[in-house]
Amino acid sequence: MSAAAITVVGSVAFDTIETPVGRAEEVLGGSATHFAVAASYFAPVHLVAVVGDDFPEAEREYLASRGIDLAGLEVRPGRTFRWTGRYHEDMNVRDTLDLQLNVFAGFEPRLGDAARRAPVAFLANIDPTLQEAVLDQFASPAVVACDTMNHWIDGARPALEKLLPRIDLLVINDEEARLLSGERNVVRAARRILDRGTRSVLVKRGEYGAILFSPESVFAVPAYPLEEVFDPTGAGDAFAGGVLGYLAATGERSEGGLRRAIVYGSVLASFVVEDFGGQRLRTVTRDDIERRYRQFVALVEF
Amino acid sequence: MSAAAITVVGSVAFDTIETPVGRAEEVLGGSATHFAVAASYFAPVHLVAVVGDDFPEAEREYLASRGIDLAGLEVRPGRTFRWTGRYHEDMNVRDTLDLQLNVFAGFEPRLGDAARRAPVAFLANIDPTLQEAVLDQFASPAVVACDTMNHWIDGARPALEKLLPRIDLLVINDEEARLLSGERNVVRAARRILDRGTRSVLVKRGEYGAILFSPESVFAVPAYPLEEVFDPTGAGDAFAGGVLGYLAATGERSEGGLRRAIVYGSVLASFVVEDFGGQRLRTVTRDDIERRYRQFVALVEF
Repeated sequence: MSAAAITVVGSVAFDTIETPVGRAEEVLGGSATHFAVAASYFAPVHLVAVVGDDFPEAEREYLASRGIDLAGLEVRPGRTFRWTGRYHEDMNVRDTLDLQLNVFAGFEPRLGDAARRAPVAFLANIDPTLQEAVLDQFASPAVVACDTMNHWIDGARPALEKLLPRIDLLVINDEEARLLSGERNVVRAARRILDRGTRSVLVKRGEYGAILFSPESVFAVPAYPLEEVFDPTGAGDAFAGGVLGYLAATGERSEGGLRRAIVYGSVLASFVVEDFGGQRLRTVTRDDIERRYRQFVALVEF
Repeated sequence: MSAAAITVVGSVAFDTIETPVGRAEEVLGGSATHFAVAASYFAPVHLVAVVGDDFPEAEREYLASRGIDLAGLEVRPGRTFRWTGRYHEDMNVRDTLDLQLNVFAGFEPRLGDAARRAPVAFLANIDPTLQEAVLDQFASPAVVACDTMNHWIDGARPALEKLLPRIDLLVINDEEARLLSGERNVVRAARRILDRGTRSVLVKRGEYGAILFSPESVFAVPAYPLEEVFDPTGAGDAFAGGVLGYLAATGERSEGGLRRAIVYGSVLASFVVEDFGGQRLRTVTRDDIERRYRQFVALVEF
C-alpha cells in the first residue's frame, strides 16, 4: 500500500523516568519521537524537531530504520532537551523533577517541501503560537490533529483558542479537557470544545481508555488490560501516532475508519507502557499489532 | 417468556443524599431495593430484607407494582434503616454523615419456600457471615452473585474469604478489588480473587464502566456517557440487578450471555444516576432500556 505521509512537529528529548516499578536513565523520548515511531508502523513520517549536537548517531539510525524522514530534524549546537519525572503509586499522576529545554528553547520549526505537502499533520504538545506558525506552512492538509497541555491552556489560552477551529482532531486527556472547557463533566467539556469549531475531540483516559466526541456521535474504547504497567511516558503520543498512522495509511475519513484508527492507537499505547520510555516499540512487529488489535475486538464484543 | 426468579438479600433504607448538583431527603434506598427494582424489568424478584413499622404503604405498593414479591420483607417494630451521605465534587468519593441501622441491626434473613428455590441469588452488601447463612438456605442456586464493601473486607475478612469459592460472580468496585486482593493493578487483583475459587469477578469502575474477569477471558464495557450525573447512589446495585435480571430471564450461562447481561446492567446503572435515589426507575420503561442498549452497541462498535 502506498500510504500518504504524516508530518509531526514536536519535541525530541532524553527522559529520566522513575515509576513505582523501576527507573530509566536518559532514554530517547519527546512527544514527536513517540508519535513518529508509533505512526511509522502504518505510514511514512516526516519528523520536524530540534536536537543538540549531543544526539547520538545510533538514535538517528534507529529512527531512520523505522522509515522516519529526518530531513526536518534540525541539529543545533548545544544539548538536547532533557526531562526528569517521577510517577506516583497512582501512575496517572507524575511530578516533573527537572526540565532543561536546552536547544529546544529556540525551536523555530520550518517545514521542508515534502513535510509541508503531507496530507496528515500532527501538532504535538508545543507552544500553540508555534503550532499555528507550523500549521500555516502546510500546503493543504486533509487531517490536522493537535495535542496540548495544562501549561499552555493556563499560559497561552488565546493562541490555543484561535487554533481550535482549524483542528480536525484534538487529542487531549480528561484533565486538559476540563481545564480548557471549564466543565467538570467530560461529555459537557467535549461539547464546549466542539462548539469552538474543532471537528472532533479525542479524550485520553489513561488506564480507562479513550472516548471520541464528534457533533454526531460518541465512541468509547477501554484500554487494553495489562497486569503490569512499567511506564506511561509516551503512551499518549504513541496513541495519537497509531490513530493518525492508520488514517494516513488507509485514507479513511469515515466515522468507522476513525474508530478503527482509535483502536490501533490504543494498541500502540498498550505496547508503550510495557517498558520504559517507549523501548518496547523497538521490538514490536506489525504482526504483534494485528494480534493485539484482534484481542481488542475480543475484549469489547458482546 | 416465563423467566426464572431471582432472590436478593440486602438492605432497604431511606437515604438522605447531597451531591454537587442537589439534595434529596429520605428517598427509598438500600442495596436490595435498587437491585430488585432494576432486576424486576427482566424477571420476578423475591426481596428478602427488613423494614420498620414506619415503612409507608405507598412504597410497598411501588415495589409490588414492579412485580417484586414482598413475602420476605419482614416488618419489625421500630424505624427503617437510615443513611445520610454527601458526595464530593468528584462523585466517585462520598462521606457517610449519619448511619442509623435501626431494625436492620437485628436482621436475620430467613428465606421462604419460593425465595429459596430461586435459581439466581444475589447477596447484596451485608455482613459476609449473614451472606453465608443465607446462601446455605438456597435449594440449589444456578448462579450466586455477591457484593461486599471495604467495611467487611477490613472487618470480616475470614468470613468473606470462606465465601469466595461459592461465588459465581463477585460484583465489586476497583477499590474493593484492590483491598481484597492486596494488588494495586486491577488485572492482577482480579486474578488473585479468581485464584480463591470465585468463578468470575465483575469490577465496577463508576464513570469508566466495568470490566469482567474470568479464567479464560476479559470483557470491558465503558459507562454510558452522560452530560449530567445527579446521584450515583444505587447505581452499583442497579447494575448488578440488570446483570442478574438478564441472566435469570434468558437462562444464559455462556460468556456471550454474561457480556450482554453486563451491558444491560450498565444501561440500568446509567438511568439510576440521572436522578436522586433511583427515582428515575419509577418512569423508565422496558422500551427505554432497549433503546439505550442499542445506544451502547453504537457507542462501542468499530
